[in-house]
Amino acid sequence: MTKKDFIDCYNRIAPYIHKTPILTSRLVDELTGAKVYFKCENFQRTGAYKMRGATNAIMQLNTEQKGIGVITHSSGNFAQALSLAARSLNVKATIVMPSNSPQVKKNAVAQYGGKIIECASTIEARQATTEHIISTSGATFIHPSNDLNVILGQGTACMELLDDFPNLDTVICPVGGGGLLAGSALAAYHFGKKCNVIGAEPSEADDAYRSLISGKIETNLTTNTIADGLRTQLGHHNFPIIKKHVQQIIRISEDDIIQAMRFIWERMKIIIEPSSAVALAAVLKNTTTFKNKSVGIIISGGNVDLENLPF
Amino acid sequence: MTKKDFIDCYNRIAPYIHKTPILTSRLVDELTGAKVYFKCENFQRTGAYKMRGATNAIMQLNTEQKGIGVITHSSGNFAQALSLAARSLNVKATIVMPSNSPQVKKNAVAQYGGKIIECASTIEARQATTEHIISTSGATFIHPSNDLNVILGQGTACMELLDDFPNLDTVICPVGGGGLLAGSALAAYHFGKKCNVIGAEPSEADDAYRSLISGKIETNLTTNTIADGLRTQLGHHNFPIIKKHVQQIIRISEDDIIQAMRFIWERMKIIIEPSSAVALAAVLKNTTTFKNKSVGIIISGGNVDLENLPF
Repeated sequence: MTKKDFIDCYNRIAPYIHKTPILTSRLVDELTGAKVYFKCENFQRTGAYKMRGATNAIMQLNTEQKGIGVITHSSGNFAQALSLAARSLNVKATIVMPSNSPQVKKNAVAQYGGKIIECASTIEARQATTEHIISTSGATFIHPSNDLNVILGQGTACMELLDDFPNLDTVICPVGGGGLLAGSALAAYHFGKKCNVIGAEPSEADDAYRSLISGKIETNLTTNTIADGLRTQLGHHNFPIIKKHVQQIIRISEDDIIQAMRFIWERMKIIIEPSSAVALAAVLKNTTTFKNKSVGIIISGGNVDLENLPF
Repeated sequence: MTKKDFIDCYNRIAPYIHKTPILTSRLVDELTGAKVYFKCENFQRTGAYKMRGATNAIMQLNTEQKGIGVITHSSGNFAQALSLAARSLNVKATIVMPSNSPQVKKNAVAQYGGKIIECASTIEARQATTEHIISTSGATFIHPSNDLNVILGQGTACMELLDDFPNLDTVICPVGGGGLLAGSALAAYHFGKKCNVIGAEPSEADDAYRSLISGKIETNLTTNTIADGLRTQLGHHNFPIIKKHVQQIIRISEDDIIQAMRFIWERMKIIIEPSSAVALAAVLKNTTTFKNKSVGIIISGGNVDLENLPF
């Protein structure tokens, strides 16, 4: 994906997304010895960066595809993002969700206009249900992370960040499915000045860390992490990009995720989800590495269940 | 207080405070039919607007007074603000706090460098302890809200808001002791274009509402509100300003405070304290009044105890 692809993508999706603010914190800078810039995608529409990739992927469809509609399987932020992006573009969205998904997530998808099809909570059931709907309706499947147009869209958050702060030494973002990390890495390659990109990942779901070491896609051995957005697997579209452009994956323990999350809530007064806290924890736990550096952190989202906080 | 007083105050305190961001929300605008601008003093240093007035009040002291130090009694945001403002200006701050104040509040004051003197949790004990320290040390007492230099400082939040959005029809802020409301009302008078100022107050601590009707300072009959910053009384410095420049006080029930607070956390992804939610609730519960208006809301602070949330 070229620099021009990014610029075209950005111009295409700009009317449908927020240009999110970038916050700084005197306290974080004092604690880390770095200059840290928080790109606040928790303030994005639907509360997460996923809106960018979902919008781009739908806009790249042809008229016939748009007429029939799109489908994905997700119980997380991509489900909400695809629903709202589709509604903004007058396209029908079908979301396949496990029937045991929390009611609050079903409500959010329904509120944004997505049509929910429930299935059993196994990967097999999810795929079979999705394939059945595609074969009968002709809807276009859009993967939450393993899709080049989704990756391109997600990269525009990092592009905006580097547009405001072109001299960043490093950009850190969480890695789950790998869409945000691959998009950010490409954006940093095109718009940064030797800007490193680092992925931050829960130790409890460290497929990206092990994949980068072995050189091939490894699967998660556990997904027992509070960072619910990061339990997913890398894909064959984003892994080659990550392999080529990402310097390092930093793993974070569950305690450190919760502590970083609470720190941001209490001291920066913004609501972030556990997946986003992983990226700040990577800096807080490695201050020697980032001392005197300019570091951008992509705060990926702010969707939490206030009834189920880890503190 | 003149326009020049505000400009001088602003230039004086600017190096010690944050110019806080102003956020908007598509959803809030849809729900209210108004165009709402949130002045985010929850992002201010120490997490509340109180930093502005505390800084101004200390800076207006003479060299001898600064040499001896300042004192206040508060267990809330002003205690933290005076502590940090004093430290920034190399002045000693003593904070008289009830011994049963939550440990989290004592820690915050200590962390910002304030010297805590504990007393029994009655108004009499608080005043006696404070007067004793003043008579022995010569420290200058700075009231959290009933002080002209504090009022002037607090008004600079509204001044910044009107500097960015000079055509606001209305500014709404919470009213407790009355420092923020009086300062905002004066700022709107000097820097707005016929900008109304409205106070928002819990029904459970409605001294300002009743005072504006009777024309004299009324006392709170109850202070049984979750909005802990708004349990205090109007004072003789700020009430005349409020009487002259404030159009209306809107009272809000406890349920509506909690609902508005949760709404901002969940949908705007920022952490606000219950006192700030009162101001948004005033708009949400009176959409007919504010339809098609440009409304500024001062989000006064974001200091909450995450262990004791109302949801």
